[in-house]
Amino acid sequence: MTASQPDSDGRFLPVIETWHGEPDGNRDLILVCEHASNAFPAPWGDLGLSADQQRAHIAWDPGALGLLRGLGRRLGAVAIHATVSRLIYDCNRAPDMAGAMPAQSELHAVPGNAALAPAARLARTEAVYLPFHAALHGLIARAIAQGRRPAVITIHSFTPVYFGQPRAVEFGVIHDADPRLAQAILAETQARGGLACGLNAPYSAADDVTHTLRLQATPYGLLNAMLEIRNDLIATPAAEEAMADRLAPAIAAALTRCRAPAEAA
Amino acid sequence: MTASQPDSDGRFLPVIETWHGEPDGNRDLILVCEHASNAFPAPWGDLGLSADQQRAHIAWDPGALGLLRGLGRRLGAVAIHATVSRLIYDCNRAPDMAGAMPAQSELHAVPGNAALAPAARLARTEAVYLPFHAALHGLIARAIAQGRRPAVITIHSFTPVYFGQPRAVEFGVIHDADPRLAQAILAETQARGGLACGLNAPYSAADDVTHTLRLQATPYGLLNAMLEIRNDLIATPAAEEAMADRLAPAIAAALTRCRAPAEAA
Repeated sequence: MTASQPDSDGRFLPVIETWHGEPDGNRDLILVCEHASNAFPAPWGDLGLSADQQRAHIAWDPGALGLLRGLGRRLGAVAIHATVSRLIYDCNRAPDMAGAMPAQSELHAVPGNAALAPAARLARTEAVYLPFHAALHGLIARAIAQGRRPAVITIHSFTPVYFGQPRAVEFGVIHDADPRLAQAILAETQARGGLACGLNAPYSAADDVTHTLRLQATPYGLLNAMLEIRNDLIATPAAEEAMADRLAPAIAAALTRCRAPAEAA
Repeated sequence: MTASQPDSDGRFLPVIETWHGEPDGNRDLILVCEHASNAFPAPWGDLGLSADQQRAHIAWDPGALGLLRGLGRRLGAVAIHATVSRLIYDCNRAPDMAGAMPAQSELHAVPGNAALAPAARLARTEAVYLPFHAALHGLIARAIAQGRRPAVITIHSFTPVYFGQPRAVEFGVIHDADPRLAQAILAETQARGGLACGLNAPYSAADDVTHTLRLQATPYGLLNAMLEIRNDLIATPAAEEAMADRLAPAIAAALTRCRAPAEAA
């Protein structure tokens, strides 16, 4: 479980890590993991969930943080990740979406989120959502101010079985308004083989899963995409590293392709 | 000239004012004025501009703050406005736009903005742009978290003569991706008569003037519009009040129209 401490204002700040010093570094890439943590700190505590539920995919995206770090090292990226469970506040959801503080997640009721009063929703928004997006906005605006054009890629994992149904897709690439980078990552990954890939799978922007991209990347016209890896493929540190080995060259090639002048594409 | 002081981190925070206690209050309306101030505080100072230039429309939107306050009182809105000149940082521009820290504004060179180094652009972005948009984002996210759906309206003024050409339009309403509120305000104002109105005049989103709407309102699907008033019509406090008297009922009616269920529209 990720350690998680509030600052003196009660805010759970995201963690920012950089690997710009790596050999292939400074690719102008921001990696984001909204569901990195399954921490349930005070003042909220476990929301009435069992220990097993707190370890399950409903609480976080298992393997996503390890994969993010593996990609960050290989691509010389900067990365940002949340430090509390998505069931306390899901930073990939706007504060008015049911999924921001869900009372139900897949088959599981979340007792501590049942019938949340407006003041409780406000407090979580201030403690988790606003600091997360202020920090990510800062990364983006600072880069742009200095003449760079960072791409924004969010890293997620999904469960192999959902509502009792097995999922065949292993790697999904999801886009919001601008499909360029998602299409390029998909093509580069498929060209390398070995993964069952899908575009806008196992779900899409129509399911309200692209809030971060819409809020942070679209207004600046930045290249952006959301990656979804089936979590049984990144279930150990060794598996996370192997997946990073597989995906990093595809992402690097996709960024190069998208950034090439149009006549060379 | 607006008084303007940095906080202990050197940031020039925007000012937030509320009139929710007014009789018609709590209309869930956020008024924004990015160009409210012609203050040129240290560490930047006057950017090499004369006193006349610092008072001219290139430095700010004369009359816009007074009109914003007049509308805020009449509509029970919350308002936010910038506290330094747009020539130091124009909060209605992304940090990579030339207009964010322009080296030239209409006929006037801005010596202090010529050939700005990346570090200087970064410093102004951190001191002015990021605090402004963090504060506005906070207003929006807090409202949404509590189940409200605020409309976002930015208030601007424009010069009667631009590059030597007189402008006939007196009141312009500009939209970004979602035209609903702009069209409704235009229709309600035209129905009341007395102003030469234009949609997307004297300029439009294609001129990169809708950054605030695109960054703050569009990602949440909030009603939004940008209002432009010719500044000779709001040149005195009495004129600002008269214009607020004229526009407030049109804005209120437009909000009511946009918020009515579709079958009643």
